Amino acid sequence: MIQFCQRCGARATFTIPPGDTFPRHVCETCGHIHYENPRLVVGCVAEWEGRILLCRRAIEPRHGFWTLPAGFMENGETTAQGAIRETHEEAGADVLVDGPFAMINVAHINQVHLFYRGRMRSPHFSPGIESLEVCLFHPDQIPWHDLAFRSVTLCLERYLGDMATGIFGFHETNISAA
Amino acid sequence: MIQFCQRCGARATFTIPPGDTFPRHVCETCGHIHYENPRLVVGCVAEWEGRILLCRRAIEPRHGFWTLPAGFMENGETTAQGAIRETHEEAGADVLVDGPFAMINVAHINQVHLFYRGRMRSPHFSPGIESLEVCLFHPDQIPWHDLAFRSVTLCLERYLGDMATGIFGFHETNISAA
Repeated sequence: MIQFCQRCGARATFTIPPGDTFPRHVCETCGHIHYENPRLVVGCVAEWEGRILLCRRAIEPRHGFWTLPAGFMENGETTAQGAIRETHEEAGADVLVDGPFAMINVAHINQVHLFYRGRMRSPHFSPGIESLEVCLFHPDQIPWHDLAFRSVTLCLERYLGDMATGIFGFHETNISAA
Repeated sequence: MIQFCQRCGARATFTIPPGDTFPRHVCETCGHIHYENPRLVVGCVAEWEGRILLCRRAIEPRHGFWTLPAGFMENGETTAQGAIRETHEEAGADVLVDGPFAMINVAHINQVHLFYRGRMRSPHFSPGIESLEVCLFHPDQIPWHDLAFRSVTLCLERYLGDMATGIFGFHETNISAA
């Protein structure tokens, strides 16, 4: 919630600026408009010899549940660089990314989740500070009931489907609030 | 540039918060961390009977140059909804989107450009407030030397390439500052 102007520190009001169609937080003093936009979460389905790398979360939300390595994209990096960075930070694994695999819109929380297909460069991995443990799972051992987020479930479902055919596509889907 | 806290209005400092790896604007008083992340620009390659819809920009940057209808994704919408909205706002055209076509990382300006393939529902269009004019171009009449942005050029090159084969893929590429 933006209550003060980040440029001059005065009060901001939530109003539709002239010529705009959306309400924004606008400074009452200097007129600065604070735009807020959806965030990209970038991650990776990383494989080693047919097994998939998952992390058990050491942080909220969904502490203790399993997830694909992923996190908010940072300024100055590409989506692929972000996916590689997050896989290194959360799972201690070095991956080569082959291409974008799934894009999942989660509009009710203003997020777009983008997962790459990745190959681990070596079988080495270790939990980062945000992970309790990291493990390689055979496709028939994925902990479906203990996954952290619906976007992770969707992405893994699509991934195992494509693994079965050997043809990897690019999958776009939406998750709604209901 | 964030100089004041948007939550309490006190001074913010640019520093690496404990446990983080990136510098952030952190409030000196209440400790609020202001995260800044890349923005998604969503747009559409809209076709009508083999011709492609372009808008001539009525705003800076690149006033007077031709572009695909596109703009910043808004909170609460999906990427496809954003592409449809921008095509309506800038070109007065109603489109059905078939799927994501190109994702272009422009890391030096903290943007990701995502273009959909779209089909116009009717041949009707009209310039919105941000466009001087809107026109349908045959592939051999694209104004290559008067395009507004490199991402538009890249997207149209890929699109015409796929039009020639009749097989539309999903294209990922990066644009660097040089």
